[in-house]
Amino acid sequence: MDVQPVLINGEWRAAQSPSGEFRAIAPNSESPMQELYPISSFLEIETAINAARETITELLSLSPDKIAEFLEIFADNIEGRSEALVKMAAEETGLPADPRLKSVELPRTTNQLRQAAAAARDRSWCTAVIDTKVNLRTKYGPLAGPVVVFSPNNFPLAFNAVSGGDFAAAVAAGNPVIAKANPGHPGTTKIMAEAALEAVHASGLPLAMVQLIYHMRLEDGFKLVAHPLIGATAFTGSRSAGLALKKAAESAGKLIYLEMSGVNPVIILPEALQERSEEIAAELSQSCTLGAGQFCTNPGLVILQQGKAAQNFMEKLTQNLQSIPAAPLLSQQVQHNLLTAVETLKKFGAEVLTGGKVIHETGYYFQNTLLAISGDKFLEHPRELQTEAFGPSTLLVLAQNVVQMKNIVESLEGNLTGSLYSHSRTEDEPLYSQIEPILRPRVGRLLNDKMPTGVAVSPAMAHGGPYPATGHPGFTSVGIPRALLRFAALQCYDNVRVHRLPPELQNRNPTGKMWRCIDGTWTQADIID
Amino acid sequence: MDVQPVLINGEWRAAQSPSGEFRAIAPNSESPMQELYPISSFLEIETAINAARETITELLSLSPDKIAEFLEIFADNIEGRSEALVKMAAEETGLPADPRLKSVELPRTTNQLRQAAAAARDRSWCTAVIDTKVNLRTKYGPLAGPVVVFSPNNFPLAFNAVSGGDFAAAVAAGNPVIAKANPGHPGTTKIMAEAALEAVHASGLPLAMVQLIYHMRLEDGFKLVAHPLIGATAFTGSRSAGLALKKAAESAGKLIYLEMSGVNPVIILPEALQERSEEIAAELSQSCTLGAGQFCTNPGLVILQQGKAAQNFMEKLTQNLQSIPAAPLLSQQVQHNLLTAVETLKKFGAEVLTGGKVIHETGYYFQNTLLAISGDKFLEHPRELQTEAFGPSTLLVLAQNVVQMKNIVESLEGNLTGSLYSHSRTEDEPLYSQIEPILRPRVGRLLNDKMPTGVAVSPAMAHGGPYPATGHPGFTSVGIPRALLRFAALQCYDNVRVHRLPPELQNRNPTGKMWRCIDGTWTQADIID
Repeated sequence: MDVQPVLINGEWRAAQSPSGEFRAIAPNSESPMQELYPISSFLEIETAINAARETITELLSLSPDKIAEFLEIFADNIEGRSEALVKMAAEETGLPADPRLKSVELPRTTNQLRQAAAAARDRSWCTAVIDTKVNLRTKYGPLAGPVVVFSPNNFPLAFNAVSGGDFAAAVAAGNPVIAKANPGHPGTTKIMAEAALEAVHASGLPLAMVQLIYHMRLEDGFKLVAHPLIGATAFTGSRSAGLALKKAAESAGKLIYLEMSGVNPVIILPEALQERSEEIAAELSQSCTLGAGQFCTNPGLVILQQGKAAQNFMEKLTQNLQSIPAAPLLSQQVQHNLLTAVETLKKFGAEVLTGGKVIHETGYYFQNTLLAISGDKFLEHPRELQTEAFGPSTLLVLAQNVVQMKNIVESLEGNLTGSLYSHSRTEDEPLYSQIEPILRPRVGRLLNDKMPTGVAVSPAMAHGGPYPATGHPGFTSVGIPRALLRFAALQCYDNVRVHRLPPELQNRNPTGKMWRCIDGTWTQADIID
Repeated sequence: MDVQPVLINGEWRAAQSPSGEFRAIAPNSESPMQELYPISSFLEIETAINAARETITELLSLSPDKIAEFLEIFADNIEGRSEALVKMAAEETGLPADPRLKSVELPRTTNQLRQAAAAARDRSWCTAVIDTKVNLRTKYGPLAGPVVVFSPNNFPLAFNAVSGGDFAAAVAAGNPVIAKANPGHPGTTKIMAEAALEAVHASGLPLAMVQLIYHMRLEDGFKLVAHPLIGATAFTGSRSAGLALKKAAESAGKLIYLEMSGVNPVIILPEALQERSEEIAAELSQSCTLGAGQFCTNPGLVILQQGKAAQNFMEKLTQNLQSIPAAPLLSQQVQHNLLTAVETLKKFGAEVLTGGKVIHETGYYFQNTLLAISGDKFLEHPRELQTEAFGPSTLLVLAQNVVQMKNIVESLEGNLTGSLYSHSRTEDEPLYSQIEPILRPRVGRLLNDKMPTGVAVSPAMAHGGPYPATGHPGFTSVGIPRALLRFAALQCYDNVRVHRLPPELQNRNPTGKMWRCIDGTWTQADIID
């Protein structure tokens, strides 16, 4: 059996002295798939880094229109391969081919790439600030080295290392990407990389703009993110892997953006629970089983006040979860980790209301799971009881009273999201105004009357949050153009002769439409000489 | 002798079980000053952290106008104390009272505070992005904990922990500050804190908005920057101290912004050297001895092509440096480090053209120093030969030819600035266009025909750069409002009821003047319901 080639500097090459080989496992059948993929050696990783580094000077003077063209052709190419992509992704991840992969995730992926193309073409993302009086001009530009993208297992298309949000943002900001595939879906990633390489050729970008490595040893991953020639790393995945990479990168002075685990607290205020407990139970059961609960914004912790309405809510929720069929998880590892997390929650006092067990069928199934704990017990071990159970599992925390609700919110770690459900009229207003200021600094996105799953690709989206949800609360990994700023350096020009300035900082607005802040005013106009 | 009190939660308190005491040393006389200051215990540091943390909820709903008022009253109070401040700062640092402290640094300090006030009042800094179609609204807001400011020795007023750029930016973004004075100028810092506390009272800000600790043990500094309740740290100082704090903070998932050492390369292209070697030599000698060379933007490395013009340049420069009187350095430590750095440069092949020695007089004097090395020898040890010699010292690198010039630029580490001198007409244009793309990714601010000292406080300034000049190339520590973004978190509001939104995200523009990006357009207008 041949080992699949890696993509280095525009060429599909046989792996150079690989550290090993691996196969993806089809979650539905639990059987290894046919193709064999290499675990790359550090020699190979360095070849990719050096090739990418060679493009940096060229990219500095490349027209953003070329980058936009690449992203658009790539999106077209993905659509041209949609059948093969959806088939492979469904097989590798066990996610439903339709609607999930074909009608939701694939369009989201091409939409992101096209939005990134529009941002590159428009150039407003680079936030040009010009002070004509002292002739200082500053904008964001690309980093001084390639961006390494480590992608998660749960979105084989929209967060793929070669086609997902991090990739699109890094490229749109003018950086070459070294993609590290998620070993759960190497075949999908390979098809994506083929589509990308064709687009590289068609748009005339440097050949090392997109490179692909399938897998590497842990220690080689540490060396990669710490390599002196790279610009930054983007990682989406588990907290343990994220923190280990963070340490390696930051010790070497390298940037790393992390999107890690969380429980995405949902707080149901008492009057809302009185008003519409069944409705909220229906929303929650849908949200927490979406994609078998394998979403970074999955609502894993629900805080509500104990009492009759809560009892009613729990019963309804339990029924709902029992009626929703279980879906296979992405891998045996996910199944194992979920069981371990549920056991941890139980160990610290949570009681299982429904589910909690592995389903012993072919495919990595797990029961839809609901746990509950009293506010008193939660506050005895708030950290352990915020353990993420990645999958279809949610923990209810039943507060004794509203004072305890506030204490529970105060004990929350940093999260991507926090939802507050309140009465449709003003009944919960006084409590909302007490809890919101406690919740606000603890989450990136604060929602009203809405579950956190569903992350719109909008310029106003912030998919980020305080540590340990991410490594820096000032950035977002979703939302164009803001997501590009993670992969950008401030470039200031002081007294530089006008003809030598990059087009974005010259007196003439290079597109006629780019927004720039000139002497304190945001404008699309030229600077009058 | 009484030990000076620390400022905790609005009160001047006697230090709680201090780890020790210290006195500042007057550099001009080399004698200890009268006042005794405490080295704070960790107990005291924690008291400050807890007090600051208590303000976070209150600050979230505080009107930015109050913060602006505070900053403006503080600036007024500084002017009211200008005589005492200048006198104390001159004594503690040995810097000239006038023009340096009185006419340059003090006005810069109050100007920064007033610009920060204007930014807080204007609110545009928070970069509100609103998508009305999906009702998503995002802006930057304060961090979830206080900002710790570690200040450098070289600007006792404009980079003071209680009044400098980091302080102004952190406060304008809505964060309380825990100031760690530079032990070189505790008396100056105390006067600043008195002025600040009066302004806190006058403006009605929370009492823990500004707290002051003079000194702490190294290990307590590590614990402070890693404390779970702090928001971020800003550090300006040496690379060794900066990197140690970086490690401590980042291991705990805490933000830290660093401004560390560098050599600020100046590249003189051959035709410029032919055209105006004496003029450039005069500029360089002024720039590299300004403030006894104790500037973070001091030009420490000059790259030029060997030959007759270079010979002429060196002779002129040597004469200039010999004719400029030496000024006392900030401390014995600075003098010692400078000597060590010069010895390192010599060890790796640099030759002393003038200076290079301690001046044995009262006061920490050092000769104005010029060293030179061939391009060949520089390229044998490029890292060691980029050792910063903080003080009036510059190393000339004499390249054999333009190819070697490019190789030398390629070997440069990340720096705050990089200057390119070229012929006043087009004679150097071809070489400029080859060297600029190599230099650009290695520096934050790129200059033409200008020395790097002199950092204008302009919205278009970027005082930052790639590692190891700073810890993140996407931020700046000078330039309002951009400097505020270091101390800010993205706050996204998803489907939040309109009356619950912060004023900056409501339909009505809260000031009528704030710039917001609404559905892709930057505007000062309201959103029409």
